[in-house]
Amino acid sequence: MTDLVTFGETMLRLSPPQGHRLETTDDLDLRIGGAESNVAAAVSRLGFDSAWLSKLPDSPLGRRVTVELQSHGVDTPVAWSDDDATRMGTYYIEHGGAPRGTNVIYDRADAAITTVSADELPTERIRESEMFYTSGITPALSEAAAKATATLLETANDAGTTTVFDLNYRSKLWTPEEAAVGYRALFDAVDVLVAAERDTREVLGRDGTPEDLVSGLADDYDFETVILTRGDEGALALHDGETYDQPVYEADTVDAVGTGDAFVGGFLAARLDGENVATGLEYAAATAALKRTIDGDIAVVTPEEVDAVVGEDGAGISR
Amino acid sequence: MTDLVTFGETMLRLSPPQGHRLETTDDLDLRIGGAESNVAAAVSRLGFDSAWLSKLPDSPLGRRVTVELQSHGVDTPVAWSDDDATRMGTYYIEHGGAPRGTNVIYDRADAAITTVSADELPTERIRESEMFYTSGITPALSEAAAKATATLLETANDAGTTTVFDLNYRSKLWTPEEAAVGYRALFDAVDVLVAAERDTREVLGRDGTPEDLVSGLADDYDFETVILTRGDEGALALHDGETYDQPVYEADTVDAVGTGDAFVGGFLAARLDGENVATGLEYAAATAALKRTIDGDIAVVTPEEVDAVVGEDGAGISR
Amino acid sequence: MTDLVTFGETMLRLSPPQGHRLETTDDLDLRIGGAESNVAAAVSRLGFDSAWLSKLPDSPLGRRVTVELQSHGVDTPVAWSDDDATRMGTYYIEHGGAPRGTNVIYDRADAAITTVSADELPTERIRESEMFYTSGITPALSEAAAKATATLLETANDAGTTTVFDLNYRSKLWTPEEAAVGYRALFDAVDVLVAAERDTREVLGRDGTPEDLVSGLADDYDFETVILTRGDEGALALHDGETYDQPVYEADTVDAVGTGDAFVGGFLAARLDGENVATGLEYAAATAALKRTIDGDIAVVTPEEVDAVVGEDGAGISR
Amino acid sequence: MTDLVTFGETMLRLSPPQGHRLETTDDLDLRIGGAESNVAAAVSRLGFDSAWLSKLPDSPLGRRVTVELQSHGVDTPVAWSDDDATRMGTYYIEHGGAPRGTNVIYDRADAAITTVSADELPTERIRESEMFYTSGITPALSEAAAKATATLLETANDAGTTTVFDLNYRSKLWTPEEAAVGYRALFDAVDVLVAAERDTREVLGRDGTPEDLVSGLADDYDFETVILTRGDEGALALHDGETYDQPVYEADTVDAVGTGDAFVGGFLAARLDGENVATGLEYAAATAALKRTIDGDIAVVTPEEVDAVVGEDGAGISR
Amino acid sequence: MTDLVTFGETMLRLSPPQGHRLETTDDLDLRIGGAESNVAAAVSRLGFDSAWLSKLPDSPLGRRVTVELQSHGVDTPVAWSDDDATRMGTYYIEHGGAPRGTNVIYDRADAAITTVSADELPTERIRESEMFYTSGITPALSEAAAKATATLLETANDAGTTTVFDLNYRSKLWTPEEAAVGYRALFDAVDVLVAAERDTREVLGRDGTPEDLVSGLADDYDFETVILTRGDEGALALHDGETYDQPVYEADTVDAVGTGDAFVGGFLAARLDGENVATGLEYAAATAALKRTIDGDIAVVTPEEVDAVVGEDGAGISR
Amino acid sequence: MTDLVTFGETMLRLSPPQGHRLETTDDLDLRIGGAESNVAAAVSRLGFDSAWLSKLPDSPLGRRVTVELQSHGVDTPVAWSDDDATRMGTYYIEHGGAPRGTNVIYDRADAAITTVSADELPTERIRESEMFYTSGITPALSEAAAKATATLLETANDAGTTTVFDLNYRSKLWTPEEAAVGYRALFDAVDVLVAAERDTREVLGRDGTPEDLVSGLADDYDFETVILTRGDEGALALHDGETYDQPVYEADTVDAVGTGDAFVGGFLAARLDGENVATGLEYAAATAALKRTIDGDIAVVTPEEVDAVVGEDGAGISR
Ligand SMILES: [Ca+2]
Ligand SMILES: [Ca+2]
Ligand SMILES: [Ca+2]
Ligand SMILES: [Ca+2]
Ligand SMILES: [Ca+2]
Ligand SMILES: [Ca+2]
Ligand SMILES: [Ca+2]
Ligand SMILES: [Ca+2]
Ligand SMILES: [Ca+2]
Ligand SMILES: [Ca+2]
Ligand SMILES: [Ca+2]
Ligand SMILES: [Ca+2]
Ligand code: NI
Ligand code: NI
Ligand code: NI
Ligand code: NI
Ligand code: NI
Ligand code: NI
Ligand code: NI
Ligand code: NI
Ligand code: NI
Ligand code: NI
Ligand code: NI
Ligand code: NI
Ligand code: NI
Ligand code: NI
Ligand code: NI
Ligand code: NI
Ligand code: NI
Ligand code: NI
Repeated sequence: MTDLVTFGETMLRLSPPQGHRLETTDDLDLRIGGAESNVAAAVSRLGFDSAWLSKLPDSPLGRRVTVELQSHGVDTPVAWSDDDATRMGTYYIEHGGAPRGTNVIYDRADAAITTVSADELPTERIRESEMFYTSGITPALSEAAAKATATLLETANDAGTTTVFDLNYRSKLWTPEEAAVGYRALFDAVDVLVAAERDTREVLGRDGTPEDLVSGLADDYDFETVILTRGDEGALALHDGETYDQPVYEADTVDAVGTGDAFVGGFLAARLDGENVATGLEYAAATAALKRTIDGDIAVVTPEEVDAVVGEDGAGISR
Repeated sequence: MTDLVTFGETMLRLSPPQGHRLETTDDLDLRIGGAESNVAAAVSRLGFDSAWLSKLPDSPLGRRVTVELQSHGVDTPVAWSDDDATRMGTYYIEHGGAPRGTNVIYDRADAAITTVSADELPTERIRESEMFYTSGITPALSEAAAKATATLLETANDAGTTTVFDLNYRSKLWTPEEAAVGYRALFDAVDVLVAAERDTREVLGRDGTPEDLVSGLADDYDFETVILTRGDEGALALHDGETYDQPVYEADTVDAVGTGDAFVGGFLAARLDGENVATGLEYAAATAALKRTIDGDIAVVTPEEVDAVVGEDGAGISR
Repeated sequence: MTDLVTFGETMLRLSPPQGHRLETTDDLDLRIGGAESNVAAAVSRLGFDSAWLSKLPDSPLGRRVTVELQSHGVDTPVAWSDDDATRMGTYYIEHGGAPRGTNVIYDRADAAITTVSADELPTERIRESEMFYTSGITPALSEAAAKATATLLETANDAGTTTVFDLNYRSKLWTPEEAAVGYRALFDAVDVLVAAERDTREVLGRDGTPEDLVSGLADDYDFETVILTRGDEGALALHDGETYDQPVYEADTVDAVGTGDAFVGGFLAARLDGENVATGLEYAAATAALKRTIDGDIAVVTPEEVDAVVGEDGAGISR
Repeated sequence: MTDLVTFGETMLRLSPPQGHRLETTDDLDLRIGGAESNVAAAVSRLGFDSAWLSKLPDSPLGRRVTVELQSHGVDTPVAWSDDDATRMGTYYIEHGGAPRGTNVIYDRADAAITTVSADELPTERIRESEMFYTSGITPALSEAAAKATATLLETANDAGTTTVFDLNYRSKLWTPEEAAVGYRALFDAVDVLVAAERDTREVLGRDGTPEDLVSGLADDYDFETVILTRGDEGALALHDGETYDQPVYEADTVDAVGTGDAFVGGFLAARLDGENVATGLEYAAATAALKRTIDGDIAVVTPEEVDAVVGEDGAGISR
Repeated sequence: MTDLVTFGETMLRLSPPQGHRLETTDDLDLRIGGAESNVAAAVSRLGFDSAWLSKLPDSPLGRRVTVELQSHGVDTPVAWSDDDATRMGTYYIEHGGAPRGTNVIYDRADAAITTVSADELPTERIRESEMFYTSGITPALSEAAAKATATLLETANDAGTTTVFDLNYRSKLWTPEEAAVGYRALFDAVDVLVAAERDTREVLGRDGTPEDLVSGLADDYDFETVILTRGDEGALALHDGETYDQPVYEADTVDAVGTGDAFVGGFLAARLDGENVATGLEYAAATAALKRTIDGDIAVVTPEEVDAVVGEDGAGISR
Repeated sequence: MTDLVTFGETMLRLSPPQGHRLETTDDLDLRIGGAESNVAAAVSRLGFDSAWLSKLPDSPLGRRVTVELQSHGVDTPVAWSDDDATRMGTYYIEHGGAPRGTNVIYDRADAAITTVSADELPTERIRESEMFYTSGITPALSEAAAKATATLLETANDAGTTTVFDLNYRSKLWTPEEAAVGYRALFDAVDVLVAAERDTREVLGRDGTPEDLVSGLADDYDFETVILTRGDEGALALHDGETYDQPVYEADTVDAVGTGDAFVGGFLAARLDGENVATGLEYAAATAALKRTIDGDIAVVTPEEVDAVVGEDGAGISR
């Protein structure tokens, strides 16, 4: 049985070397990235069986994605598209530093996943899984993707699979108003909500203290767990009426992209391992901090490394 | 005054290192490529003023194209698109070797140029230019691009600018039947036709000896010059009732992409320099052979290097 | 059910850039290589389920192997060793060219697999599989490895799994006399024998024409199929009393290492697909030729590419 | 009409990878660098027409410079030298970090520009331009270069072109005493002076507070504008009797070389855009800070990026 | 006459690029590293004749070590092993950053040096040298290596060569108890002891203030000089009854490996130059700080650079 | 005692990657090259003690040369120049392929060696050496270098050291007439002459068959040995009245630069080993063929590899 199934878009990720610009570079690093596959890869690396559902063009570019995900042990029973009108989503990332921010350029229109339907995916994998995860990016991709997202969340919910949803608001895909409608249509089928504080305020239009935000969300939508992620200020969770405050672990950041997905991956792995929410948050924060030291979207870590951070070992040289 | 204006699509060109596969590589070389900009760059490098007209997304990816073309001295008065629905065309190239062919994957749908209109381009540049070049790829991109192609060819023709057209049939863009219709709609405004023997037979549906092909085309459409390119068998031209046979120069090939465009660039540069068709073909073949020794679509050569090949200097080390 | 299970050693493969020497390089490419995992990867890439059994050190170096094999879809239910006295086998390869040969340096002593026992491997995977493959390298590694090889071959044989054995004589591991004894102890459990002509003569001490060699082997050991690989002269097979002669496909060689394993992989994939021996040999030769155009031990190919070679498409650029 | 013309030497710039030493490296990055071309490139990138005048050897090395400058949109109507006694200036840069400083090795003797004469340059470009910029490096290169510098500054001054001069004292080219004489001979034709505080004190021999320095310079030589650059302490300008104090923007520095030229480029672009001195200094400081995040001498930036820094947007990831 | 002879193991050092993991990288940097060759290289670079004694496999891998050491001017009269049972020691290093530490994986079992005997080394080089250095790693490698260490230290001692010994405790080679016995067996022949504070406490089992530690060691074993290295807190030395406290110089660290060896190299070079212990410690700290800015184990520095740090010049750009 | 001392100029060698042009590259490989150091390195690698005399700037660039030569075991007792008017000679090489030749750009004016005097070199090393080698490049560099060349050749001759001289005509340094005068002034002190057939005809103005050329040279100048190198047609030698004809070994060429120096190095090493002229020529041809498979000027080979070529082993994979 799979421990975690995720569903969403993964893109090719193209980046020039450190300090170089897209306008002038002639070298690009090629990796892959996508919230749902990042989470699946982190959970697989942390010792659990995970699978990622999606739709990809039947081409070397599409296979580039499954090759990299499989390397991390993720199962990839995706739908393959032969439709020439669909393509491989791509994003370009130029790492910056103050005062130049990191710049992301998305080139994801007409990706194969925009034509996905729940019918072409092995939904039994979700029913047989312990957890199902998707994020607010997926329903924003197309009407078809939104419909599939709803179907899969309901499928999971009906089967007793714990459902996890991260808002992951993307302003380049839809407006806050559209997103709010889209999110609310799904909340009913969600057990565990992960929400950035900023999205909670600006998209869901809620206010108050962080404590107000988590309790308001939990009350209004009857979530089993709500996790509010707050950047440098850590995370706040509410579960069974109790709140948990988790600070961040300091990190020498090489690449910040994927930090939030590593956080979710660490949390879900701990939960799959039977840990309580407090411990889950520690593993989440540790996995996120480790991710920041690693090039690429994916948390290429081991359970032992996460344990060591939770146990607060310093960063020296071990020999 | 500009010597040559060209019009067409240029794409980002992404390729893994020699012997590596797209499915598994994590390094890509980034260059640019497009028939019309390849020709403009070759002509500029060979000593003439050239300009390239097109439409690009107003982004680092769009600017990546003008940066590289400008580096070769090409002027780039393009239209910039702010329309989020358009994108930067991209192609992936995996160099092979027998028995694995070189593999090209196009990702060019919805490129900014598919929305181009002659109105947004500086057509006076064409009227003031000695030559205008475009290829059969451009009208295949979209209805708008086909209309702009026709308008620009007619603009050139009306202004007495010599018009040059290379069939450049692309089976992934249209059928032979569609292409034949598209080509014929433009032939009236074309002075110099460049046609691969294969396209002449399979798309234009003509047959006979190579000599039959060039004379048939010249007769039917009243071209001033017809150049039939025949791969390893060289090229055959017809001009003023005389035919010219040009063999290829042997080359140690590093990258065959762009060979045909280098051929056209060498021919046009010689013609701009006042050379006759026979000499033009020699320069064409020499530029094409040099291109094959160079990584990327563009013939990064000097006039002296082309002269040296025409003068048949051997390939040793000069010190 | 798995289609193919293989068992053997896989090493890290370290190589300097083309034209550079190990003595002076400061850059190494890191890949993995091993006959049995090369075969498993080729078969997986050609569309069948494969698994590779082995024993690896429980370290990033050991996981480097499973990461790369999983990326090609190979299942890796290996035994992990915590014994500090065992290590990760490594080999260095310096690509040459006439008159300098390619140089391989093995550093494989005390690899974890030298302590392997059949008990620590999931032998049920072999029993449930259609085919089982190992090579003459494995029993040469250690007494424990030889014993495990015998046990696994017998397990397969008893379960009705087709067993495939490639002599793969390695003079740095044992003498011809030792190898001959080792091979003969296993032949009883082997259905399909793959043998280089040179090993057949120099190790097994047989002589005569190639036809004599295959028929002699088949007669003496009652193999179902015997394939004699003959380098540039192709391969000769005997099956059901009929001989099959397969020439090589010409290839522009980038990296010759792994050619033989790609040949076996192509053959087994065709056989798993229900093809007869003649067709199997064509797929074998095609896969081997493609492998030569690719950097690394593994045939990073697709079924379509192998089909295209068998169908004798030329190596041009398709666009 | 050109907005800015500059005149000076540009060199090849060779640097080993981060953390590697020149003594032991076998890889060098090749870029170009020179105060006057750095300024021209920054101004072109910020939206104005710029041209760079110089003299280069007629060789691939000389063309390497024009290729890179043209890529940034800079026009390069340079004199080409066929004199075998002249060469391409080169500099090596080894990036350090405390306590090892960044090390620069110049190899610029007998560069083609040391033989330059105003006669061989298109001086009408200067007369038709809005601004002309050169620095104190140019007259230090040779007597011929000093004479050409004086002639071009006077040409500009006579034509009403605003003249801008940056002291840029280089101790490896001349003594403070020689430099002081050289500078003073040119000041009469200078409208805008840019001077490092240290050069003002140690070369021009002035003292007092920064305010004393700018007012003293303005009074003594009747400059329209004086800008005193003060490293981490920002810049102080005097214009029309008013002083302006500009702090630095903090930056994560990848490469500090070219910071001062980016500052001048940002200032001149703002002035060409009609901005006042205070705003000009803000753009100067923002362009300088962005430059520090970028590899190479040149500020590969966009107007939008400079605007964003002036508008004090933080450095996050925008998606 | 040689100024310094050292004896010990040097390994190949393999590391992925910054931010990449061993599990997933396909690129490795190849360097060499070993305490005793690091010290010999630093001393040679700082202007003295040094030689390194060891035993290496007679292969390209063994020669890779002498090639790199010779490049730094170190003489390498090593014993070459043709014994196929011995190999080249290797270590893998993955640079981290908080909260992920730098990870070192040793693969040094059965290195050729484990079979070394004093007989096969040119011991006259030690007798004719001013100083002899080895570290506590060497006797931990094997019984043979321990015996050779003792013999060489005694040879040096008997000949009046100053002997220097650095504890360099490695927990992966022996237990604290074993190490303490091993060290004490050698102390009688040691003149200058270098000991990390942590090893002094945890291996030698001593306690008290740092001052207590150095005076206790000096008293108990009659060392001429004792240097206690204390990480960020600098070093404390005792010599002729006087203690010397040396703080660290701050450094922008690129690679911390080899810092301790650079410290010893700087100290010994200064002592060979006739400097007193206080000055020796300054040079030690300066060489160590410079090392941290450089990729690899070895302090690729010049005497002038060390002088500049001792003279406290800031880290700017000199031109 | 040194076996071979050489004297001459060595330059930095800068080259773009295969298929890239100097005009557009941003990556350069850095190596060193010079006829006399190439010969010294080959002889050292083939098992003999060699030293290289020269004059270098006292800078990281000068040390870059000694670092690389020392790595091959060559002793480098050079004169170091602090004269700012001298510099490090550099050459750029762009590897081509038909019809584009390999292009070499020299930037060697005012190299430190142009100011060399025999006084500043350790001439006793020549007197104590078995052989002394220099080439016709050295006297062409400057009057001072020509004078030092004459002095060192005479010093060697007077001391009974065998003197070896390779014409190595460089048209960019002097005219054929100047060279002929320069060569003849030295011939009296030369024992072994190496001369390209082309230089013999075009510079020395001799004609006739190859046999005529070698016997004419031997007769006219009383050389002990004359070797005429004839490119693809091999070499012809005359010694003790007997002629020897040596064909070339075929090679897969990666880099042809330095082939002639490898030939001389192989010949001298064999002669130092007591081999006769016929065997010397075989080793020469084998070393030259191996060099062609290796990137850079230097023959990074082993005696065993040369032996294997002489013994005509094929180029397969040995494992
Ligand atoms: Ca590149
Ligand atoms: Ca990256
Ligand atoms: Ca990369
Ligand atoms: Ca490329
Ligand atoms: Ca390197
Ligand atoms: Ca490198
Ligand atoms: Ca490789
Ligand atoms: Ca750089
Ligand atoms: Ca690589
Ligand atoms: Ca590049
Ligand atoms: Ca580079
Ligand atoms: Ca090279
Ligand atoms: Ni990378
Ligand atoms: Ni990276
Ligand atoms: Ni890579
Ligand atoms: Ni490239
Ligand atoms: Ni490249
Ligand atoms: Ni390339
Ligand atoms: Ni690679
Ligand atoms: Ni490769
Ligand atoms: Ni390198
Ligand atoms: Ni770069
Ligand atoms: Ni860079
Ligand atoms: Ni790679
Ligand atoms: Ni490195
Ligand atoms: Ni490196
Ligand atoms: Ni490095
Ligand atoms: Ni680059
Ligand atoms: Ni290289
Ligand atoms: Ni190379």
